[in-house]
Amino acid sequence: MTPYQELERLFLQRGLLQEASAVLHWDSAAMMPKGGAEARAEQLAELKLAARAPLLDPKTADLLGAAEDALGGDDEQPGAAWRQANLRAMRRIWRHETAVPDDLAVAASKAGSACEMVWREARTQSDFAAVRPHLETVVGLTRDIAAAMAAALDCAPYDALLDIFEPGARSADIDVVFDQLQKFLPDVLERVLDRQQNAPAPIMPAGPFAIERQRELGLRFMAALGFDFDHGRLDVSDHPFTGGVPSDVRLTTRYRSDDFVSALMGVLHETGHALYEQGLPKSWARQPVGAAGGMTLHESQSLLIEMQVCRGPAFLTYAAPLLSEAFGGAGEAWQVDNLLRLYSRVERSLIRVDADEVSYPLHVMVRYRLEQALLSGDLAVADLPGAWNDGVEAMLGVRPANDREGCLQDIHWMDGAFGYFPTYTLGALAAAQIFAAAEQAMPDLHATIAEGRFQPLLDWLRREIHGRGSLLETDALIKQVTGRPLGVEAFCDHLQKRYLG
Amino acid sequence: MTPYQELERLFLQRGLLQEASAVLHWDSAAMMPKGGAEARAEQLAELKLAARAPLLDPKTADLLGAAEDALGGDDEQPGAAWRQANLRAMRRIWRHETAVPDDLAVAASKAGSACEMVWREARTQSDFAAVRPHLETVVGLTRDIAAAMAAALDCAPYDALLDIFEPGARSADIDVVFDQLQKFLPDVLERVLDRQQNAPAPIMPAGPFAIERQRELGLRFMAALGFDFDHGRLDVSDHPFTGGVPSDVRLTTRYRSDDFVSALMGVLHETGHALYEQGLPKSWARQPVGAAGGMTLHESQSLLIEMQVCRGPAFLTYAAPLLSEAFGGAGEAWQVDNLLRLYSRVERSLIRVDADEVSYPLHVMVRYRLEQALLSGDLAVADLPGAWNDGVEAMLGVRPANDREGCLQDIHWMDGAFGYFPTYTLGALAAAQIFAAAEQAMPDLHATIAEGRFQPLLDWLRREIHGRGSLLETDALIKQVTGRPLGVEAFCDHLQKRYLG
Repeated sequence: MTPYQELERLFLQRGLLQEASAVLHWDSAAMMPKGGAEARAEQLAELKLAARAPLLDPKTADLLGAAEDALGGDDEQPGAAWRQANLRAMRRIWRHETAVPDDLAVAASKAGSACEMVWREARTQSDFAAVRPHLETVVGLTRDIAAAMAAALDCAPYDALLDIFEPGARSADIDVVFDQLQKFLPDVLERVLDRQQNAPAPIMPAGPFAIERQRELGLRFMAALGFDFDHGRLDVSDHPFTGGVPSDVRLTTRYRSDDFVSALMGVLHETGHALYEQGLPKSWARQPVGAAGGMTLHESQSLLIEMQVCRGPAFLTYAAPLLSEAFGGAGEAWQVDNLLRLYSRVERSLIRVDADEVSYPLHVMVRYRLEQALLSGDLAVADLPGAWNDGVEAMLGVRPANDREGCLQDIHWMDGAFGYFPTYTLGALAAAQIFAAAEQAMPDLHATIAEGRFQPLLDWLRREIHGRGSLLETDALIKQVTGRPLGVEAFCDHLQKRYLG
Repeated sequence: MTPYQELERLFLQRGLLQEASAVLHWDSAAMMPKGGAEARAEQLAELKLAARAPLLDPKTADLLGAAEDALGGDDEQPGAAWRQANLRAMRRIWRHETAVPDDLAVAASKAGSACEMVWREARTQSDFAAVRPHLETVVGLTRDIAAAMAAALDCAPYDALLDIFEPGARSADIDVVFDQLQKFLPDVLERVLDRQQNAPAPIMPAGPFAIERQRELGLRFMAALGFDFDHGRLDVSDHPFTGGVPSDVRLTTRYRSDDFVSALMGVLHETGHALYEQGLPKSWARQPVGAAGGMTLHESQSLLIEMQVCRGPAFLTYAAPLLSEAFGGAGEAWQVDNLLRLYSRVERSLIRVDADEVSYPLHVMVRYRLEQALLSGDLAVADLPGAWNDGVEAMLGVRPANDREGCLQDIHWMDGAFGYFPTYTLGALAAAQIFAAAEQAMPDLHATIAEGRFQPLLDWLRREIHGRGSLLETDALIKQVTGRPLGVEAFCDHLQKRYLG
């Protein structure tokens, strides 16, 4: 075996143990009784250790060096670009993993699991006091991780955390984009709200909406969009997410019997993530280059499906009769025009996951600043609820009445995921830019969508994005697919067209 | 750390990875879409390797030797007996694991997963041809494992496999017990069937029985028996089983809308297993001595609940009104006497898991002989369907019409579990003997059961069996609890009393 082949074997082992973890993570959220949490946290921590072990072996550093020396000579062989990208990704992962000592990684994993389990209960009670000591531990350990990684990656601590979720992302670049957004978004929001007020209000279809019908409809749309149920399933959890592994993708949503929009859009959003996972290159499964790109790209795929496609007029033309049929609805409330108003309703709201795409970046910016302050120590965990409410009020003009609709609403920090939030908004920008490229490539795209035919779009996404795994870095891929670097223009155009056109 | 403490640490790591595997095994049967099977097989194989790795390290052999030398001096310390039993169990596991080379263990794990997945589909189609090549691979690899283990344990190959499921079990001893059973069981069966024919036939309550009602009733009985839903859940799979981990026990059953007896008794049977798991000593979790005893003892706990308790008159006195209520049943069919006849119905049947306790050992004996013949090579896999049908006909007097009700009915061999079947019948003997001891210890036992109060029985089982983990070997434990070694007498008495009294 060549050094490179030995590395592939090591990363395969690592990948298999990570797959095991991924399924157990899904189980924790979707299936596990609460008394299983303590044991699960220990199982996941041990799995993390076992997956890391081969990377920490000093032999692996030698293998990486030897493979990097050798792989230049591989330029002309088929698949050379994939192997080179794989090796680059291996080096990046190795840098991340070796930066963090075992005991710190284990402590962080356990603290995250413990905090998340407490949060599950505390959120429903709006009980920040119960979460606080756990979150303090998580923040403290995350700070230690950020410091260790910053030293290894030669960057600022917060940037090191960003790099976990989006390779190469730096807060200086994000600041530029977010500053641009902040210049025009509050104004756009104001204008959209004005315009909405002067237009007919959407009519709420009358519930209750049987949860079993909602579920069936979600499954139907998933199938239409191209989700492969031989390789995945749909369940329920407190916080919708896409988990599992590419050959067995586990989606979740949550249902309310008084509103079908939220659960359904949750399903469609997660289906975007799931299609990406199911479309990853199978011949590179478990290798770093076969994994999805960073979270910016991942979120671009969920938002492309949810925001660009499913909340638009073409999709709703296809969906309206199916909605009527599922819930036995009739009349004006179930007409395309009304559904369109309903599905593109904008408001100054408190819950990020239910937010419209105009105000969503404002939610993200609040979190982006707060998480930097938490990690730098400028903000104590004890002061988070107040700082959160102040931030939301300043940015969105509304103030949470309690922590359930304030700082307890999101799972991310509870589980130690700091540096994740900005990728939601970068993903929204990427979704708009990639969808604009798809519209250009397929002039009849909206017509096919209106007929419920999603295969042309899926084929294009598979070819341009999904099937390329992590062959290119996000910036390079976006530039290649759309002809220009990631920016705010396509997103602005989209908001203009959908909400102010 | 002392050598013994280091071993505890190694076995904790192993235990955590085995817990991860246990949850994934449950997921494979209860949740996983079929397209996830291939990846799952690889995940489980890798987990098995990772769990074995610390045992194969030559340092572990040294640690075992050093700990064994040191632990004699520990006699007077609190917990010494537990530590000594733990060390004995560690040595046994070490012998098992080091006997089988990595590549063989991985190949067997993957082949078992692959065969099991094919079987899931093939069973419904009665398609033995689809299973055959996979089962040939499994049998071949199991034979290799048996040979390797036999050399290490200094016993016959089949005995080495028995030892996996029941430490110290040897076929020579089983032959003695099975010969005794075979001398009187066919005669008892004949007499019971005669007697049944001359008694009023049970009236079948009229279905259909809504599956949701069956499920609710199962949950209600589980709770009454003492199952802790904070640490476990009930789901559906093709083949009922108890999986998961002691702090998160996952039960499954399967439902038929035309019959509630089968699913409900499946739940009660698995609840017996689950109560054992939930009652294991928590301070020894993940250590070998903290695990349940062999499968004989495990099966004794499921059969004690199902056969000794739940199919008896006291339990049915408690259950009859709840059954009526759940299914809206009224009249003679729902009276205790009739339910008793229904729940203790004996017949010459084809499906082991649905068999009554009189004929069940005959099913086991067929499998016991066939699996020895498969492993010795006296029987080719290709000839299994015919040999199965002949064996069942000779033993039970009925002949399967197809392989679905013949050799494709059980999961065990598909997954490489040879040597498991005899423990069902040893467990039935143990259940009768242990329950007789419980009756002696608690003169009002039947009265409490008839009132739906199961705590006294559970407390007794927790103290006498569950809470002792693997502190004693099965034979020693049974002797201590019942006053004599495991034998057929209590089982004979039980059959006599329930079916011919």
